[in-house]
Formats: sequence, structure tokens, C-alpha cells
Amino acid sequence: MTIPERVRWMQDIFWEYQKYFNFIKKVARHEFRKNWFTRIHTPILEKIELITKSIWESSDIVSKEMYVLKDKKDRELVLKPESTAWVMRAYLENFLSEPQPISLYYIEPHFRYDRPQKWRFRQFHQIWAEIIWEQDPVLDANLIFIWANILDSCGLKWKYKIKLNSLWILKEREKYLEELKSFFVNKTHILDELDLYRLEKNPLRVLDSKNPDTRELIKFAPKMTDFLKKDSKEFYEKVKDYLWIFWIEFEEDSNLVRWLDYYCHTVWEFVDNSWRSQDAFWWWWRYDDLSKYIGHKTSVPGSWFALWAERIIDAVIDSWIKLKNKDAIHVYFIQLWEEAKKVTIKLNKEAHERWLNSLISLGTPSLSIQMKKANKLNARYVVIIGMMEAKNGVCQIKDMEAWTQKELKIWEVLDYIVDKIWPKDLDFYEPAKDLII
Amino acid sequence: MTIPERVRWMQDIFWEYQKYFNFIKKVARHEFRKNWFTRIHTPILEKIELITKSIWESSDIVSKEMYVLKDKKDRELVLKPESTAWVMRAYLENFLSEPQPISLYYIEPHFRYDRPQKWRFRQFHQIWAEIIWEQDPVLDANLIFIWANILDSCGLKWKYKIKLNSLWILKEREKYLEELKSFFVNKTHILDELDLYRLEKNPLRVLDSKNPDTRELIKFAPKMTDFLKKDSKEFYEKVKDYLWIFWIEFEEDSNLVRWLDYYCHTVWEFVDNSWRSQDAFWWWWRYDDLSKYIGHKTSVPGSWFALWAERIIDAVIDSWIKLKNKDAIHVYFIQLWEEAKKVTIKLNKEAHERWLNSLISLGTPSLSIQMKKANKLNARYVVIIGMMEAKNGVCQIKDMEAWTQKELKIWEVLDYIVDKIWPKDLDFYEPAKDLII
Repeated sequence: MTIPERVRWMQDIFWEYQKYFNFIKKVARHEFRKNWFTRIHTPILEKIELITKSIWESSDIVSKEMYVLKDKKDRELVLKPESTAWVMRAYLENFLSEPQPISLYYIEPHFRYDRPQKWRFRQFHQIWAEIIWEQDPVLDANLIFIWANILDSCGLKWKYKIKLNSLWILKEREKYLEELKSFFVNKTHILDELDLYRLEKNPLRVLDSKNPDTRELIKFAPKMTDFLKKDSKEFYEKVKDYLWIFWIEFEEDSNLVRWLDYYCHTVWEFVDNSWRSQDAFWWWWRYDDLSKYIGHKTSVPGSWFALWAERIIDAVIDSWIKLKNKDAIHVYFIQLWEEAKKVTIKLNKEAHERWLNSLISLGTPSLSIQMKKANKLNARYVVIIGMMEAKNGVCQIKDMEAWTQKELKIWEVLDYIVDKIWPKDLDFYEPAKDLII
Repeated sequence: MTIPERVRWMQDIFWEYQKYFNFIKKVARHEFRKNWFTRIHTPILEKIELITKSIWESSDIVSKEMYVLKDKKDRELVLKPESTAWVMRAYLENFLSEPQPISLYYIEPHFRYDRPQKWRFRQFHQIWAEIIWEQDPVLDANLIFIWANILDSCGLKWKYKIKLNSLWILKEREKYLEELKSFFVNKTHILDELDLYRLEKNPLRVLDSKNPDTRELIKFAPKMTDFLKKDSKEFYEKVKDYLWIFWIEFEEDSNLVRWLDYYCHTVWEFVDNSWRSQDAFWWWWRYDDLSKYIGHKTSVPGSWFALWAERIIDAVIDSWIKLKNKDAIHVYFIQLWEEAKKVTIKLNKEAHERWLNSLISLGTPSLSIQMKKANKLNARYVVIIGMMEAKNGVCQIKDMEAWTQKELKIWEVLDYIVDKIWPKDLDFYEPAKDLII
């Protein structure tokens, strides 16, 4: 019998990678809370109608790219591939009677059963935010600003650029789509099969082609921005205005498109500008009619962004950004005898009460194994209590930086260490201060 | 068309409930980090063999109580119903070459397709910790201590009691199982159908019966602790010894059982001692052979506990414990004109740089709607900038506690507020201080 393997392209997260993950989540939570976004969890499973009937019909993410299961009544449930529809469902169920707009965020696993990429596992984690109800260009600018803050705080300042475009509203888009179609119509020999398919289904998607020949051709295609109508143009101009007030630099890119019908107005991407790739880090757009698509009677506009946590972690690691080790062990207790173990248990407990990160070597390993572990953990001090020490109420303390050792009374060893460790390295969190009992 | 409903017995988490959830996670993370437990995420989907072939054969949690789906190669995948097997798989894959023992924790969603209870949704969240490799009674005591700390920190001190028992090791258990079987054999008319089934499959499980007649009978059944052999007895005695050193009170309960074959030695429960219920809050036990069951060649002992976050949240809420509102809005900006909006954007940005929780009313609602929202958010100050104010570089500031209002210059309003807000209410988190760039 062999151990069942992990599902392919799903990963265990731990050690350093976990620390980057923690850090990015913390930065995002902090930025969201500062801007009064409220956190939400939606269930990971949801009825498939929420996705298929309404949203993804014309999209790449059809059921073959999702994890689907059947419940006991033979209804299909899907593991969430993203969250816009999930959150709109939750919003309509829970938030309609609250003061609007509602700003929500969450950090959760998502699942796609498609071809994985370097940073794109089949279970991946999205950090995600949305402002629902209000349709005002300043909200788009504000979201971009919040997002830029999160990236800058992660150490990625200057490592991305922002691309911006407007998709106007569906009604207005129609004339442009016609123009675009007629531009390509006598150039179909240049397009590949996928592009031809897209031209047929939704010509906007051709602008997103990865085919170099098509990309060359696109340079001469009609530009969306030339077709903006008065209201859409004003909306777009205001977004740009506000971005300047936020001191956010951006580039306009008239080929930046999204292809679902309910997307409208502003669309933007944060693009990695390192040597590594020109891929989008994450993207974001505005919608009007999503709520109608999932069965609500009226339009509820919204603006959202999502980022793949794994993508950001990769960018941070590739930029050689290191995290400070806040879990450094200040003191590691080694015990070499049953009675010594009991003494160290008490010492360890007291060390925690004095805010030290301390760890006790429990079990019954040898001194050399315990010392090896202290080294590996980068412990600042090691306190050793053997049989003689326990009997005499003393201990050996090793300074692991200076490589010195001396004997101290057990009752004075914690004072000695607290005195040496800078208070700034200690974590003074007290749960009781968060409570009203 | 109607909006597809949420899957039954799964919930959206937000507002107050989310805050309790955040708090409990934070308390747990803090306690785990202090004791150098390292966080891990394992994938939510795993091959079904990990569960069915090895672990749950004799358990209630068989495949009818799990969410199962098929991949493209028709292999069955399961949404994790718990994590012991998951983590043992991850441990064997990633941690064998690290210094032992390994202390892991995680906080993740789990899924059970069974009859829900008040606090037990079909997607629920477990906070979970495990020490792997070492088999030493002090580790069990240490885990109980950590766990008691977490509960106490959540405000639940005195609201639970700890029950303790020993299951010894499988080999030794056999004689007791025979005795137990023969005790029940001429009393089968008292047992109900479920108990009879259990008696057949695994007599230990009868001790866990909820049937009042059976419970009465059990009082006269042979006691496990009377059958302890030397080594097991010593192990159990030491656990109790160490618990006293940690100052942990407990009750021995010889009917406290777990029924999977690889469980051994210490078993314990934290039991709610309020008027509400006598249910276990969470439980915990030690195992030796789990690794063998999932296909590893040797035994890797471990000790773990898990708690349902939802169960703890219920207990905290039912105990009337409130959380301090750390997201209180210090200043809420109301703008009533396009140019005023631009001024408030800058002010809001500066407020954040000065650590204030500030929020700007974007969009175009009326003054009365904006004031209503300021009230609802419990904002400490409201700053109003209309057309005249923007032109003259002034603003109206309302003290929402004193119900006073006055006019200030725009450039001095933040100084005024910072001066009034106690620094202790501000969140000084600076991501840059976590980084080494």
C-alpha cells in the first residue's frame, strides 16, 4: 500500500510560503479595514445555476473547467471558481436594507479545473474586494488607489503599471462592435482558428488575442475610445481626473477588454513590469446588470477587483523581498531528566506570561539533538536544566550569538533574558483587551 | 427567474458573526505562535482513498456523509470532512527530514453532508493543532494547557470542564473489549437497535450511547481504567501529573471513548458546563498507527485537537461576551459638490496617513442620507464640505457625542481630530516594518 498522493496541481502551504501568505493577507486586511470594507465569507459550494444559467455561458470558464458534484437530490453543486456571482447572491440576500453602498472584501480558496500555470494552482486563493450599489467614477478611482496601496505595502512599488480603458455600456458598444467586425472581415486569413471563433462569438475578444500576427493587426483596428458617447466619456474622464487626485499614474490601453455583456465603463489591469513577464497581476472592472443575470429584478451596479494571492507571493519572492522573522525563539529550554522537565514546564509558562517566545524541548531526545534543534530554530538563548541543575535550583544559559555559557539561579534566568531582549521584539497582544465581559 | 438559493445548511458569514470569527482566529494564532506551532494549509479536495481505504471504514463518517465528486479520469475526490488524515499525508510528504517533533496548526473550512445541528453547518470551520512524531505524556498535557489558554482568552474561563480518560494501546484493549461484551450479553433487551449494532461492531462505542437506559446500565459496566497495563498506566499517570503542574483541573471519566483502532492512550474532551448543554465543545486524542493506515511503512505517533469555530462563537455569544469595536470610524467626510469631493479625497488620504479610521461618503447621496450613514457607523466626528466651504477652504465639523458643530479651516481639521482621539484607539500597523527590502 502506498500513501495516496495529493491531487495534482493543488499544494500544501507551510513554512516560508505560509509566512508570505500571512503577510499579504495582513496587509490587505489592514488596508480594507482602514477604508471600512467589511469582511464576508460565502460558502465554497453553491448551486450550479448561479454560474451556468447566468454568467459563464459565453466564457471560457464553463463547466468543464470547474469542479462539480451532485447532491443527494441529484442537483449539481460547484466549487467556486470566482466570487462575483457568489457575493452578489449574498448581497441580495443580506445587505439590501443596510445603508449603501456596501464595501465587502474576502480572502478565500477558489477552484478551477483548468491548465495550471506557475502561480495558478487548481486550488488558489483570491483576495477580493467590491463596492456595491453606487455607480460613481470616484469609486473606481478609490478602488485602484486602495489596491495600489496594498501592492506598495507588499514591497512591490514601481514593480507594476496600471492600464486603463472604458467599455462604456452595452447599448453604446454595439456600433463599435460592428465597426470592429467589418475591420477584420477581409483580413480573416491572418487570424488563427481561436481568433476566428472569437470574431464570430464576440469580436471584442479578438483584441485580447495572444497571436503575434493578430496583435500586429490590432494596432490598426478602430479604437474603442473613439466611439465613446457623451455620458460614458464623462464617466471615463472623471475616473482619470480622480486618479490624478489620488496621485496614481496609469496608462490608457484601448485594447484592454472584458467580454461579458454586463461589464461596463471602467476596466483596468495591474501589469507586472518586471523582466519576468508582462502578465496582468490582477484585474478589475465595473458591472451594472449582474444582479439581473442571477435573477434579481433590478440592476445593482458594482465595481470589484480580485487578486491571486499566489501570484503576489511569487512577485514578492522574485523581487528578493524578505520578511522579518517575528517568530524568533527568544529562549529554548532543554531538559534532561523527569524532574527537570517539570521545572522547565513552569519556566516556559512564566516566560510566556512575560511575552517571550519560548519553546520547551519536550519528549526525551538527547542533548545533542536538542541543541541541533535550538540551532535550527535560531534560538537567541538556550537554557539547559539537567539532573544536578534541577536539584540545585540552577540552570546553564547559553548565549547563541556570543557563544558564551554561564550558570544562573533558576529564579533569575527570566529576568536576565527579558533584560537583554529588546521590548520591540516582543508581541504584547492581550486578547482580554479586545473583550467587553 | 429567481435568485438561486444558498445551499441548505451553509451560511454567509459577515458583520458581528465575522468579528467573533476574526477574534477567535486571532486568539488561536497568537497562542499557537507563542508555542511555535507552524501554520499549514492542505488542499480542500483530496483523493477519497485517503479517507475510505484506511480511516473511516468503521466510522459514522462514511461516504454518505461526505461531499464526493469525480475528476476527469473518474477518480473520486472528497471535500475534507476533517483533517487528521490530510495533515498526516502532508507531514509524510514534507516534514520527515525536519527536526522533530513537528507542531502544526490550521484554521480551515470542512464539509460534512450530515444532519446539521445548531452550530454545526455543512460547511464549518475547524481550528486544529497537532504534535507529530513524539510520544510523550507531557505533550498531551501541553496541548490541553494551550487549549485551555485559548478558551480562557476567548472569555470562556470557568465555562467548561475537562474530562480525561485513557484508551491504552490496541493490543491491551482486547481483554477489556471481551469483558465489556460479556457484560452486555445478557442485557441486550435493554439496548436499542443502534447500541446493538455498535455492540456487534465495536463494544467501546456502546459507552458513548445517548440512550438513557443504556447510560444507566453503563454505570455498572467494567471500567477501562481498571484494565490498564503497566506502561499505559504510567503514561496516563504522567499525563495527570503534568496537568497538575500546568494548574489544569480535570475530571476522570472512564466512559469517555473513541472507537477507531489507531487511537491510543489519552483521550479528552472539553465539555460545556453551562445550563445550555452538556455537549463536548471539542475533543482531542492521541494516535500511533494513523500513518500506517494511510500507507506509510512505520508508525508515527501524534496528538491532536480540533474545535469547531462556530461552536465557540455560539458559546461566546451565549455568554454575553461582546467585542470592542476596533473599526470605529473616527471621522466621516461628507461632500456635497464635485469640487468638495476632490478636497475630501485628499483629506481622507491624509487622515489615513495619520492613522485615523476615516471614511468618505462617495457617490452622490443627499446630506440627510449621508448623516444617517454617519450615525449608523457610529462616527466620532463628521466633517462636512459643501460648495461654499470648498471655495473658502473651510469645513463644518460635528462632534457626534457632544452634538456640537463648528467651522474650522480645512488645513487644521485633522490636527483638531488627532488631538481629540486617544492614541490608544489608533492602529499603528506599518507593513514596511515587516519587510527586509
